[in-house]
Amino acid sequence: MLVIMKKDATEAQVEAVIREIEALGYRGIPMPGIQRTAICTIGNQGPVEDSRILALDGVKETIRVTKPYKLVSRETHPQPTIISIGNVIIGGEKPVIMAGPCAIESENQALTIANLVKQYGAQVFRGGAFKPRTSPYSFQGLGEEGLKILKKVREETGLLIITEAIDHANIELIEQYADIIQLGARNMQNYSLLRQAGHATKPILLKRGFSATIEELLMSAEYIMSEGNTQIILCERGIRTFSDNTRNTLDLSAILSIKEVSHLPVIVDPSHAAGRREYVIPLSRGAIAIGADGILVEVHNDPLHALSDGMQSLYPEQFAALMKEIKTLTK
Amino acid sequence: MLVIMKKDATEAQVEAVIREIEALGYRGIPMPGIQRTAICTIGNQGPVEDSRILALDGVKETIRVTKPYKLVSRETHPQPTIISIGNVIIGGEKPVIMAGPCAIESENQALTIANLVKQYGAQVFRGGAFKPRTSPYSFQGLGEEGLKILKKVREETGLLIITEAIDHANIELIEQYADIIQLGARNMQNYSLLRQAGHATKPILLKRGFSATIEELLMSAEYIMSEGNTQIILCERGIRTFSDNTRNTLDLSAILSIKEVSHLPVIVDPSHAAGRREYVIPLSRGAIAIGADGILVEVHNDPLHALSDGMQSLYPEQFAALMKEIKTLTK
Amino acid sequence: MLVIMKKDATEAQVEAVIREIEALGYRGIPMPGIQRTAICTIGNQGPVEDSRILALDGVKETIRVTKPYKLVSRETHPQPTIISIGNVIIGGEKPVIMAGPCAIESENQALTIANLVKQYGAQVFRGGAFKPRTSPYSFQGLGEEGLKILKKVREETGLLIITEAIDHANIELIEQYADIIQLGARNMQNYSLLRQAGHATKPILLKRGFSATIEELLMSAEYIMSEGNTQIILCERGIRTFSDNTRNTLDLSAILSIKEVSHLPVIVDPSHAAGRREYVIPLSRGAIAIGADGILVEVHNDPLHALSDGMQSLYPEQFAALMKEIKTLTK
Amino acid sequence: MLVIMKKDATEAQVEAVIREIEALGYRGIPMPGIQRTAICTIGNQGPVEDSRILALDGVKETIRVTKPYKLVSRETHPQPTIISIGNVIIGGEKPVIMAGPCAIESENQALTIANLVKQYGAQVFRGGAFKPRTSPYSFQGLGEEGLKILKKVREETGLLIITEAIDHANIELIEQYADIIQLGARNMQNYSLLRQAGHATKPILLKRGFSATIEELLMSAEYIMSEGNTQIILCERGIRTFSDNTRNTLDLSAILSIKEVSHLPVIVDPSHAAGRREYVIPLSRGAIAIGADGILVEVHNDPLHALSDGMQSLYPEQFAALMKEIKTLTK
Repeated sequence: MLVIMKKDATEAQVEAVIREIEALGYRGIPMPGIQRTAICTIGNQGPVEDSRILALDGVKETIRVTKPYKLVSRETHPQPTIISIGNVIIGGEKPVIMAGPCAIESENQALTIANLVKQYGAQVFRGGAFKPRTSPYSFQGLGEEGLKILKKVREETGLLIITEAIDHANIELIEQYADIIQLGARNMQNYSLLRQAGHATKPILLKRGFSATIEELLMSAEYIMSEGNTQIILCERGIRTFSDNTRNTLDLSAILSIKEVSHLPVIVDPSHAAGRREYVIPLSRGAIAIGADGILVEVHNDPLHALSDGMQSLYPEQFAALMKEIKTLTK
Repeated sequence: MLVIMKKDATEAQVEAVIREIEALGYRGIPMPGIQRTAICTIGNQGPVEDSRILALDGVKETIRVTKPYKLVSRETHPQPTIISIGNVIIGGEKPVIMAGPCAIESENQALTIANLVKQYGAQVFRGGAFKPRTSPYSFQGLGEEGLKILKKVREETGLLIITEAIDHANIELIEQYADIIQLGARNMQNYSLLRQAGHATKPILLKRGFSATIEELLMSAEYIMSEGNTQIILCERGIRTFSDNTRNTLDLSAILSIKEVSHLPVIVDPSHAAGRREYVIPLSRGAIAIGADGILVEVHNDPLHALSDGMQSLYPEQFAALMKEIKTLTK
Repeated sequence: MLVIMKKDATEAQVEAVIREIEALGYRGIPMPGIQRTAICTIGNQGPVEDSRILALDGVKETIRVTKPYKLVSRETHPQPTIISIGNVIIGGEKPVIMAGPCAIESENQALTIANLVKQYGAQVFRGGAFKPRTSPYSFQGLGEEGLKILKKVREETGLLIITEAIDHANIELIEQYADIIQLGARNMQNYSLLRQAGHATKPILLKRGFSATIEELLMSAEYIMSEGNTQIILCERGIRTFSDNTRNTLDLSAILSIKEVSHLPVIVDPSHAAGRREYVIPLSRGAIAIGADGILVEVHNDPLHALSDGMQSLYPEQFAALMKEIKTLTK
Repeated sequence: MLVIMKKDATEAQVEAVIREIEALGYRGIPMPGIQRTAICTIGNQGPVEDSRILALDGVKETIRVTKPYKLVSRETHPQPTIISIGNVIIGGEKPVIMAGPCAIESENQALTIANLVKQYGAQVFRGGAFKPRTSPYSFQGLGEEGLKILKKVREETGLLIITEAIDHANIELIEQYADIIQLGARNMQNYSLLRQAGHATKPILLKRGFSATIEELLMSAEYIMSEGNTQIILCERGIRTFSDNTRNTLDLSAILSIKEVSHLPVIVDPSHAAGRREYVIPLSRGAIAIGADGILVEVHNDPLHALSDGMQSLYPEQFAALMKEIKTLTK
């Protein structure tokens, strides 16, 4: 059980709660947060009788943590979350299409691709300014320069912008430039970054770690939501398995497992999972057929020379074909 | 390199080939087969100059084994394999639907389910007579009694019959009763059984082992085909991963990876992968949308009392709904 | 629950048991075995009240199957199983060393290696006559010719012989030539072969499938033991994971997990797991330090030209060094 | 190829390098760093002829990146790294023993455990002040209060202190209190934190992510080292696999794989891998026998009431037994 104190609770009130928890035979440990103090109850095997605790001064509420996550669960919030940004709706009837290059390389490259994906029907432009790269010697992105280019893309095309934050410093910067802040697979359990994302005023797209269970993904979303940001989109992007026919194994059943227990929208990134552009169109069809709320794909005007980890970017004409197929599927 | 001898090649001819291989600096090892002797060349790093070997008496051909599989590959056989059984076509334009219970429990159960799945549009009836069960104390199937029931199902409904063979003795028996012989995931690398299946006169449905790579699956199909049986259907049924939201992780990209390198048809079994009946309809939609040549699903008139490993059997009305959705998708 | 009928139980007695099970509200399904009939009770959630069943004619005993395995468990048989063959003891205080080539290539090769490994202290000679190979075009072993060579090795060196059986036909043949019959990882769930091994008069070495859980391994051992053969040695040989630094990931904790719940001896095969001869010595040290009852290693007089899947065979001098280290460890 | 500019290189000099790279037919992308600018060369398939670049003003050196990591590799630095802190040597002849509770709970708990582990021979005291927990509602550690307790432990016992940093803010704090800064498995690819660790003045213990390959672990170490901190200890703590007999599968072959290509010391954490205290002693023996430079184990005076994720903490008497066994092994 978690005891949530009011914002203005005093230290004496916190201590009184801990004494009460100890009187019940457990231990109470204060966890000071940015906006409030919570007291964690340790040592109980089942539910704690909380009536006397709730009666204490300074106590806002208690949270029974039978499931490891709570706010992101369908139990707490049965209706699906729908995220509206401008006139784009995520989690509604139509799938949202997010497309663009792996990395922003130049203004010209970004605008060329953005105009293409817009023309074929994308609503959101993706492109990395800060790239989390396995090697310190790989291209790490253009940084704030890239964010400025993304801002220009939005001004010129009207597309929404999504880009990845990889640390405390750039999440604040990105909040100023982007419409959706992406947290990548490698940072899915960077709890400090998740907490900070919980204070952002922009929606968060949280990618599943490549070896995270669905429960762990939802717990990470709970970190964000427990800090106040309820606008979260989850993203399946392939998991690490023994199978070597694709870069990662796209786990399309994740769409179903997430929607069964959570109200959050789920999109699918087939580009990173497949690592092969030929697979992106059929896997996108599969994702939509199974019920994904959208897809996130890499598109490049010159895929063979893209600054990308793999060779997964679609040619513009492949993206056009993909959009046509999605329209047929969702008629 | 493999040197294939003619059927009537003499021992002296085999020895002459071995001497020639040794003269080239390698080793030749005879592998007597049921219908022919092959001589395996060991020790060569690259292609072997085979003109002098081909000129020897008794030599039929040489096979360069740069890829580990050959007969099942698209290189050798660019056109997709289409398997016709009666008026059912597997690998053609329409997906084939194979449905029925996990195990044949009784004549009444089998006929009830068969009539239901036929009514909703299935073409093939599945049901196990010999069950490979993890525990020796689990129900192992009705054996030949089950096969007789399956024969009756075919006579009464006109549905084709598929059932699993688990050893030498029952593969011969099943060949007499069934239209398609299934080899299960646990036997995917039972090479002795694969060879025997290569001599069967009925098509083989070969399930991917739950931790087999696509290459290993194709090599196992090669075992069957190298013995003469070219009628092989491959089946993706989920792989073993760390992910615990489903019983196994359905790897729908396997459809693409197989079709890229092989001419064999691929069907998908979502029931065993998901282990949850609620997931079977959407995963089937996904499989068809990605390009599967059919699906293999468990359906039971009384799923809660089915003799099945998990709780994955569809209710008849769920199967009806599934068939409706597949029709919409493939219009 | 499983009802075991006496050997001479009549059909009428079996039917009476089934009626009694039905009277309790469950279903009873007869499973005719080679030596006895068992009746499987289906539909019960918890333990079945069996007093009335035990009172029926022809009933030998009932087996409560709360755990999926029973005979191999420490609950049933708290003392560790010790297997004595000649003067070799497996499962006792000293680790047993099984060594030899991947495949028997010739009499000369086998005798050369056997004499070397004997000289350095091995007690059991390993060598494949029937090889389960991923590709049908790979060397499949010398067959019975190889078994004859193994027999000669035993006669000349006094070493015990272990070799792999891959199907019904060769398990009977191997029983005549070898001291220990090996069942390989790919056949760990070939239940038909397991049952047959249960009727063999020689001890069985059962390798863990490369994606089998410990429970599945024990269930497969239970298949053998439930047919009457209690002389079983288990073998950890690496599992399939995402990790690519070794061929398979050697799971040395398996030694502990098996010994915790089962009385069977466990040996470790580091050669197949590592796929690198440099790793075999330290991994063997680790296996012995953790508590393995022995090791199974590949040794070849000419490793670079061995007919082997990988390059894992030790040079004779490496084997000599390994034996020295094991002696130091187990002083 | 990476072109490293001198610290005082001007923008004009950077631009001149980029023009030269473009003249060679590639692209040059500047990556401003904290201490220096590097220019990443993109588009080359093989080595770049760098003589003209090296002749330019402001260029310090070029780094050929044929391997994805360089500074941590044995190629660059053939001698093993030995880390000396006070009179404790890590990477030398004797294994280092790091022991203590999962989390610092109170001064009394920490001092009690520290005195026990010191008495039995540990050299380093471990204990978390900032805990990365899967759920936001779990105990997150005492924070700086915990660090103060750790400082007291050092003063009273003379043990070195290791504790985990989970973000930018606490890494700076921890640097002031601890002797070794631990980066946890979930942060292994938090590149921003790795870079910051590269500027710390204390040695870093970097845990392998539970689904990281050895190459990825080394790349993450390269991130730290490329920023200037060469004092890095790697730690194997179990990987995520299908196998469910332990919490994670301890990959002891990782010790060998790391030492083969890197000069960094490797220690093993059997507590988190096993998740069972009974397994910690034998797995530690195995780790030392294989060649680990030390072990990191959880010990608690009252393990059943420890604030820990699992039940893996050793009882003090188990730790005493472990120390005795390690002494025997390393005599």
